[in-house]
Amino acid sequence: MLPPHVFQALWFSLKATFHYPPSLPKAQSRSLETPRLILDADRLEHNAARMRERSLELGVSLRPHLKTAKSLEVARIATNGTFGPITVSTLNEAEYFARGGYKDLLYAVSIVGNKLARVDQIQRTTDARILLVVDSVEAAKLLVERTIELNSNFGCLIEIDCGEHRSGVLPVEEDVLPIAEALAGSRRVRLDGVMTHAGHSYSTADRRKIAEIAEIERRSAVEAARILQETGVPTPIVSVGSTPTVLFAEHLGGVTEVRCGIYLFWDMAQFSRGVCRMEEIAISVLAAVIGHNRQGSRIIVDAGALALSKDLGANEYLPDTKYGYVCDSYSGERLSLLSVDSVHQEHGAISVKDASWFDRLPIGSLVRIVPNHACLTCAAYFDYTVVREGTIVDQWERTNGW
Amino acid sequence: MLPPHVFQALWFSLKATFHYPPSLPKAQSRSLETPRLILDADRLEHNAARMRERSLELGVSLRPHLKTAKSLEVARIATNGTFGPITVSTLNEAEYFARGGYKDLLYAVSIVGNKLARVDQIQRTTDARILLVVDSVEAAKLLVERTIELNSNFGCLIEIDCGEHRSGVLPVEEDVLPIAEALAGSRRVRLDGVMTHAGHSYSTADRRKIAEIAEIERRSAVEAARILQETGVPTPIVSVGSTPTVLFAEHLGGVTEVRCGIYLFWDMAQFSRGVCRMEEIAISVLAAVIGHNRQGSRIIVDAGALALSKDLGANEYLPDTKYGYVCDSYSGERLSLLSVDSVHQEHGAISVKDASWFDRLPIGSLVRIVPNHACLTCAAYFDYTVVREGTIVDQWERTNGW
Repeated sequence: MLPPHVFQALWFSLKATFHYPPSLPKAQSRSLETPRLILDADRLEHNAARMRERSLELGVSLRPHLKTAKSLEVARIATNGTFGPITVSTLNEAEYFARGGYKDLLYAVSIVGNKLARVDQIQRTTDARILLVVDSVEAAKLLVERTIELNSNFGCLIEIDCGEHRSGVLPVEEDVLPIAEALAGSRRVRLDGVMTHAGHSYSTADRRKIAEIAEIERRSAVEAARILQETGVPTPIVSVGSTPTVLFAEHLGGVTEVRCGIYLFWDMAQFSRGVCRMEEIAISVLAAVIGHNRQGSRIIVDAGALALSKDLGANEYLPDTKYGYVCDSYSGERLSLLSVDSVHQEHGAISVKDASWFDRLPIGSLVRIVPNHACLTCAAYFDYTVVREGTIVDQWERTNGW
Repeated sequence: MLPPHVFQALWFSLKATFHYPPSLPKAQSRSLETPRLILDADRLEHNAARMRERSLELGVSLRPHLKTAKSLEVARIATNGTFGPITVSTLNEAEYFARGGYKDLLYAVSIVGNKLARVDQIQRTTDARILLVVDSVEAAKLLVERTIELNSNFGCLIEIDCGEHRSGVLPVEEDVLPIAEALAGSRRVRLDGVMTHAGHSYSTADRRKIAEIAEIERRSAVEAARILQETGVPTPIVSVGSTPTVLFAEHLGGVTEVRCGIYLFWDMAQFSRGVCRMEEIAISVLAAVIGHNRQGSRIIVDAGALALSKDLGANEYLPDTKYGYVCDSYSGERLSLLSVDSVHQEHGAISVKDASWFDRLPIGSLVRIVPNHACLTCAAYFDYTVVREGTIVDQWERTNGW
């Protein structure tokens, strides 16, 4: 018997057979150089609108995480045309979005001394304020000391561990208060509240479990905020985030904002866990058939480990994903049960059952590959080829590195 | 009992404990932003010189593969200051090196129509000639047709499959001759010989087996060349390549050039197979300790899936590699048996056995991580921080994308 989440994923898989990635016009795509990252703007807008509605429904502010998109154009869709609050995971993103007009940024990775001069410089040369994160007394003390040296001002949040056990302190007085005390002496560092991230919500495909994790995430943040409030520290920001917990939380009472990100693009990893539908996945990699390995019954494409990444995140729940579903480049239909089975740096190999595939996918023809993990796949590209209603309409830049 | 290659790898590991990556001066590195890619130019020059000597010894020309380095400065070291022959794996690299003065490039991935306009443009706007690769009659015909449309001229090689079964045709008349015939009609496409790549030499740590693979690689290329020569086609280029086969081949009679690349930097994957020594690995990632997860006994660094890649290539032979060996940033010594055990997009987690590590690696301190696969790790960075004799001396750019 299949476990329910696998059954669900397979069901979605069958259901979605006829409308995987959006269609691409033949004439336009024939001359496109490959590999190339395709972004469906209609789907992106649908995904962005849905999460805005969900945030309104939950009564919280949305601070989209842009570590996947790393693009100003995508950001403007995510923030609905405003320069409203956003989340980033690198200072390169912070600088890029601050220069692009964004004013309220949360750098959601613990800050340490060697990054503060750059944060300071971004704040001095743009209108942006970059909210920082600390999760230890040591980091708090270093932040206070370095801020004096830089003659700067920073806002910061205390990171809370709500069960992922990656970073953050427990939402208990003995963990939270010493950090608050280390910051309290500074007139230059302002403690603005708390943040937590239930990253472990990605490790289950069971919506009931995700809802439970969401409730623990919420309670952890709210409890930490209460501890601070009781000592007289105001906590204007009580921030939680992960796409699955925000989607499946019963309520977010006491939380002020959510920081989800993968919902903008989705990917096979999220689909495999039943968190999105195939028709919502907004990105795919356009690749060309560059070889027919008849002895090995393999079709070779020009999308390999760099173009797709080596992430295999969907395979735990949907083992036939391999390095990505192979779809017809025009109709968007998955090609039978084809996947990219193995990758070299610039080569991807697709196993086929019979030689008829060599006629169906001749040398030079194109396929579209839906990857495991959008964050890692997109990081290899400098731009998105943007599609609307099946037509290529634009090219949007993205930023990479640190 | 441990299999011999695991024993060998473990022995290397113990032997090399005290001189892993080269040392970095404390004062210089304290203010460096992280994550950052460190390149030891002394080691690079040693590695480059060794392979040049080896090629001389084998009586073949060296056409270094620059898909890992993607840097003009590294290329000049690899080609010993000349603008001599090089190999690339993307047209972005081809363009970058052509603009940088390189004149003889081999684009070692099968060419298809949607890339030819760019190849033509590179040839028209620089002094470079870009040698192409085909491995089917279809591809050869498309090349001939498109070359007429472009009013261009290209040189090309036929790719031979010597056992990796990724790309190439078998070195037999019925496979090789039809491709040569498809090209023969064209006055614009010139067949210059054959190339093959024994990529499967990476899948063993047994030098005797590598030598056997090297001999099959050599014979496949030489036999394919002979088939062409017998029909009157001159084959000035008989090209083989893979770092392990070139190092361990008994001889390369009949071969004109080798195309190895990973020898310039080396990495844990090569070390785990006993192909290099730890003291020869020229690249590492400098990362900062950004968190102490005391509940989970984990040290968190700012090098995760993007900074290291998700490649686990060394683990088959050296399972304690995980996402990379963790070394002292200054002395270069491996820190006990520490590895990066798990990665998120921007976080790496290092499991530690006891709390003393939180004192040894305080928040804000630096570590150096030796990654699995240099090609994939380097691809996340836009430059190398160059070290000579333990001092940072330069910053070298690299190029990414397609």
